[in-house]
Amino acid sequence: MPFKHLTCPKCGAQVKEYQNPFPTVDIIIRVGEKIVFIERLNHPHGWALPGGFVDYGESLEDAARREALEETNLEVLGLKQFKAYSKPDRDPRHHTISMVFTAVGHGPPRAGDDAGRAQLFSLDDLPSPLCFDHATIIEDYKKMRAEIRPGEK
Amino acid sequence: MPFKHLTCPKCGAQVKEYQNPFPTVDIIIRVGEKIVFIERLNHPHGWALPGGFVDYGESLEDAARREALEETNLEVLGLKQFKAYSKPDRDPRHHTISMVFTAVGHGPPRAGDDAGRAQLFSLDDLPSPLCFDHATIIEDYKKMRAEIRPGEK
Repeated sequence: MPFKHLTCPKCGAQVKEYQNPFPTVDIIIRVGEKIVFIERLNHPHGWALPGGFVDYGESLEDAARREALEETNLEVLGLKQFKAYSKPDRDPRHHTISMVFTAVGHGPPRAGDDAGRAQLFSLDDLPSPLCFDHATIIEDYKKMRAEIRPGEK
Repeated sequence: MPFKHLTCPKCGAQVKEYQNPFPTVDIIIRVGEKIVFIERLNHPHGWALPGGFVDYGESLEDAARREALEETNLEVLGLKQFKAYSKPDRDPRHHTISMVFTAVGHGPPRAGDDAGRAQLFSLDDLPSPLCFDHATIIEDYKKMRAEIRPGEK
């Protein structure tokens, strides 16, 4: 049973608490034929899909809309569940379980508080390095698109 | 920001801890043309798809295989992500985010530790009451099957 240990603010004793994986969302936002990536200011450094933690009391869909807006200033349309990614080592900091969504945005993205830059990239010319398992996610996304739209890239 | 409060075992002070939704899995296990449901011994009482909490360090897929085996004694094949359900009120006890899987089992289910009975039901003759949002999940599953196998039930 994995536990985390908190410190009592009054006496300094260790308080044991059951540890669950952290639910997160990531969003593949298509603007025209390009995808939005954000440059991370915090560890791990590099480029990533917009995303973040799901709040208690918030649905996955609401979290995805909120994170997209906070990190790219885009109000996304056509939000759709793509696939969940949950390998324990996908995030070097802790175990996250991410539901990845696809959506469409209009207009150029503008970086929010957490992000250095928010920028559009073609699927044939991705930024580097890509953080977490986002290279795998994009590979799966390209495969899905090739299946439903054969002949197109 | 939603917090939960723990009690320090040494001095009794309240220790504040950030609260995340709990990741869970549920599995639609098809045996022949029927689906496995388990009778819940704990609140909320009724029938439910086999499922449970995802452990820290465990993938969604591993959690689904483990819970299926623990609750129905079936080793499932062809495990596939179906859809995630995350409405904050889907579980009356706390906010869970469930990835629902589809899979195939062989032979009759046998109830595990947590379950009263594990039983096969036809999609046209479901048990009652169904707990959580499992009636919605089954409706979505029936719609998906009707789309990919039109003419069949």
